[in-house]
Amino acid sequence: MERTYVCDIEKSAETTLLVRGWVHKIHDLGAITFVHLRDKSGIVQLVFDKGLEESLRLEMCIEVQGEKVENEKAPGGVELSVRALKVLGKAYYDTLPFEINNHKVSAALETQLDHRSISLRRPKTRAVFKVQEEIVEAFRGYLKGLRFSEIHTPKLISSSTEGGSEMFTVNYFERRAFLAQSPQFYKQMMVGAGFERVFEIGAAYRAELHNTWRHLNEYISLDVEMGFIHDEFDLMDLEEGFMNYLFAHLNKACASELAMYDIRFPEGLPRIPRIPLSEVQDILLEKYGKKSPSGNIDAEGEILLSQYVKETYGSDFVFLTKYPAAKRPMYTMPDGTIPDMTKSFDLIYKGLEITTGGQRIHDYEMLKANIVKFGLNPEDFSFYVNSFKYGMPPHGGFAIGLERLTMKLLDLDNIREATLLPRDMKRLEP
Amino acid sequence: MERTYVCDIEKSAETTLLVRGWVHKIHDLGAITFVHLRDKSGIVQLVFDKGLEESLRLEMCIEVQGEKVENEKAPGGVELSVRALKVLGKAYYDTLPFEINNHKVSAALETQLDHRSISLRRPKTRAVFKVQEEIVEAFRGYLKGLRFSEIHTPKLISSSTEGGSEMFTVNYFERRAFLAQSPQFYKQMMVGAGFERVFEIGAAYRAELHNTWRHLNEYISLDVEMGFIHDEFDLMDLEEGFMNYLFAHLNKACASELAMYDIRFPEGLPRIPRIPLSEVQDILLEKYGKKSPSGNIDAEGEILLSQYVKETYGSDFVFLTKYPAAKRPMYTMPDGTIPDMTKSFDLIYKGLEITTGGQRIHDYEMLKANIVKFGLNPEDFSFYVNSFKYGMPPHGGFAIGLERLTMKLLDLDNIREATLLPRDMKRLEP
Repeated sequence: MERTYVCDIEKSAETTLLVRGWVHKIHDLGAITFVHLRDKSGIVQLVFDKGLEESLRLEMCIEVQGEKVENEKAPGGVELSVRALKVLGKAYYDTLPFEINNHKVSAALETQLDHRSISLRRPKTRAVFKVQEEIVEAFRGYLKGLRFSEIHTPKLISSSTEGGSEMFTVNYFERRAFLAQSPQFYKQMMVGAGFERVFEIGAAYRAELHNTWRHLNEYISLDVEMGFIHDEFDLMDLEEGFMNYLFAHLNKACASELAMYDIRFPEGLPRIPRIPLSEVQDILLEKYGKKSPSGNIDAEGEILLSQYVKETYGSDFVFLTKYPAAKRPMYTMPDGTIPDMTKSFDLIYKGLEITTGGQRIHDYEMLKANIVKFGLNPEDFSFYVNSFKYGMPPHGGFAIGLERLTMKLLDLDNIREATLLPRDMKRLEP
Repeated sequence: MERTYVCDIEKSAETTLLVRGWVHKIHDLGAITFVHLRDKSGIVQLVFDKGLEESLRLEMCIEVQGEKVENEKAPGGVELSVRALKVLGKAYYDTLPFEINNHKVSAALETQLDHRSISLRRPKTRAVFKVQEEIVEAFRGYLKGLRFSEIHTPKLISSSTEGGSEMFTVNYFERRAFLAQSPQFYKQMMVGAGFERVFEIGAAYRAELHNTWRHLNEYISLDVEMGFIHDEFDLMDLEEGFMNYLFAHLNKACASELAMYDIRFPEGLPRIPRIPLSEVQDILLEKYGKKSPSGNIDAEGEILLSQYVKETYGSDFVFLTKYPAAKRPMYTMPDGTIPDMTKSFDLIYKGLEITTGGQRIHDYEMLKANIVKFGLNPEDFSFYVNSFKYGMPPHGGFAIGLERLTMKLLDLDNIREATLLPRDMKRLEP
C-alpha cells in the first residue's frame, strides 16, 4: 500500500490508509488510546484499541494502517482507526531532552540547539526553515526571471577580498588559504566574464570576535551583481522589487507556517525611502537627540531610524545612501558629485541592517588608483585587478544575509533560531 | 531607450534599438566596418560607417543605437546600422591573453583558467555553466516535486564525518575545525529531525593529494537523503528518475548550448542495469581479462564495464550494488542476507563513477556497534550517534559531484573545464 502524507488524508478517496511518521503525543483513555502521529506535512489523530498501543513511546517512528473516520474534534476533522502497527525506528532514550509537543518549549535556546534534531521536530520550529527555503526560492525565482545566472564560486581563496583581517585561515597543502568573507571579487569578475547578471546562494565566513544575537561566523549570503547599470539606484530598484516579490511569494507559499507566527506580509509595499546618510544622522540628532558615529549609524540608530521611517512614510524598510568613501571598501564607486562620498547604500528592515550594496568601480586605472589610495597594493589582488583591463561594464550589487532576513521576517529574537546548525565562537556542534 | 538583448532583436517590433555588450570581432572593409557585438544572450552584427568605429578595440564594453536591417548573411538574419556609439568600459590591454572569437581556443587549459574572466567570454566556454546551472535546476525541481526540502548545513565542522584523514583544517578561534567532506551526518540528522526528505547543493572539500583530470579539492556536491525507504533500491529508483528528468530538462532548457557541443540527450532512458559488484568483477575478468582490486573496481574497470553495459543493455549508466562492508563507511546498512555485504551502490556513467549511495543504519544500538567494529569510538561522533536515540526512520541517500556530472554530460576532457573557478593542489587563484 502506498503511503499517504498527513496533509493528503482529508482529500484522499481511499478509506484504508497507510501513514508513517513520529509518535507526537499519547493520550491513554483506558479502553482506547489517542495518538498524534506527526509527519513532514502535519499531524493526524490515530485511535488505538486496547493492546496494540502498548509498545508506543513518544518520538518513535511508526507505520500505521487504519480506517479513515470523520471526527470533527480531531485535528483536521479526520482520524485513523488503527488496524495494523509497525515500528520503523525504535526509541532508546530515558527521557526526552525537552518536550516538543506543547505550544511552548521550556528549554533554553542553547539546549534546543544542542539537540537540534529534536527541537526541529516541533512543527513551529521547523516552519522557520520552510520559510527560509521559500525566501531562497523567491530570491532565485525573481532573479532568474530577470535573466540573472546562478553561479557557484569557491570559498577557499588565496587572499582577503576586502583587505580585512577577520578571516579564517585554512591549512591548504603547503600553503595558507582563507575562507571567503563574500564572493565579492568573483561575482564582479563573472559579470565581466559575460554572465552580465549573476547571483549566488552560498556560505560566507566571518572570524568576528563577537558572540551576539545577530552574528554568525558561518552564514548564507544571498549575493547579487548586475552589469550595465546606470547607477546605484538601479540596484535599489532591483532590491525593492525583490522585497515586493518576496512578500507576495511568502504569503502564498508559507501561509500555514506564517500563521504559526501570526504573520502576514503587506503586499504592494509603499515606496522604500532613500535617505542620504548625512540626512539620517541629522534626523536622529534632531528628533531623538541621538549622536551617530562618523560616517555611519549604530545599532540604536538603526532602530530609531526605522521608527522614524515607519511613522513618516509607513515603511518597514529604508535605504541609507551616500556613505563616505572612508567607510566603504576600496572597490566602491565614488559619488562623482559630492566629494568623498560613494554610490553605496544599506537597507535597514525593522531596525536591523540586512543589506550592504553599491555601484563598483569598473575602470581599471581608477580601481588601481583607489586601491593605492586605501593604502593597499594592487599586486595583492592582481587576478582581480587585471580582469578589469579587458572591458568591464558599469556594475554593482548587494548581499543579503539569509539568516538575518529570516529572523527579522519571523520576528525571532536570535539569529541562531533562523539557522539550521549555527556556528559561533563557542559552537561547532552539532 | 530600453536595452534590447541580442536574442530579442529579431522578434522586436522596434526599428531603432539600443544594445549593450562586448566587441567580439572587428572586420574593417574600408568604407564600412562590420563589428560583432556579444552580450549574455548572443551575437549581433553592427555596421559602422567610416569614422565612428575608430575607437573600437576588441572586448571593450559598448552601448550602441542602431537601425534594424534584415540581412540574411548576418548571424541571426538581422544586423544593426549604427547611429550612436558610447564606450561603457574601456580596454587597457596590450594584447589579449588569447583569442576568444574563433572556433577553437589555442591556449592551454591552464592559461585559460589563469584568465578565467576572459576564457568565459567565449560563448562555447560559458555555455558549460548554463548547462551546469540547468543541471542544478533540474535536481532541485525534480526533488522539490517529490516533497524534498532544500537545506543548508555548515561546512565548518568539529570532527571528521567519515573517519577519514583527507580533511582541510581551519584555525577556528582557539580551536581546530575541519572543512566538511560531505553533509553526510547532517543530512541524515535532518531526515530524523522531521524533514524526512532533504537535499543540499553545497561545497564539499577533499584534501586529496592527487592532481588529476577528475579530482577537485573543492567541489559542489548534490546531496540527497530520504527517509522511510524500504531499501537501497528505492534510492536507485529515485536517481534513475532524476536522470530521465535531467535529460529531458537539458534538451529543452539548453538546446542551443548542447548544439555547440553536438549533443542531444536520449529521452526515455533504457532501464539502468543493477549489477552486484562481485558479478561485475567476474564479468570484467571473463570478458576482458581484467583483474579488479578487492571489493571495488578501478578506473579502467569502470571504463570496461560501461563498454560492456552499453553493448549488452544499450545503457550509458550502470548501478554497481552490494559493496562489501569493509569498503564502505561505518554508517552503511549491512545487506542482512549476504554476510559482510552492504546495501550500497555506485552509479557509473560513461566510464566514470558519478555517485556513491546507500541505505544507512538507522538503529541506535546497531550504529554504535558498527562504529566500534570499525575501530572507531562512538564518543567521537556523539552529536551524531545520540540523535539516533529518538526514533530514526529507515533512510538512505546519495551524492552526485556536480562538476563530474557536467564534465561527462558535455564530454569534456578535464573536470576543471566544468568548474567556474577550480581549486586544486596548485590552484587557489583566480
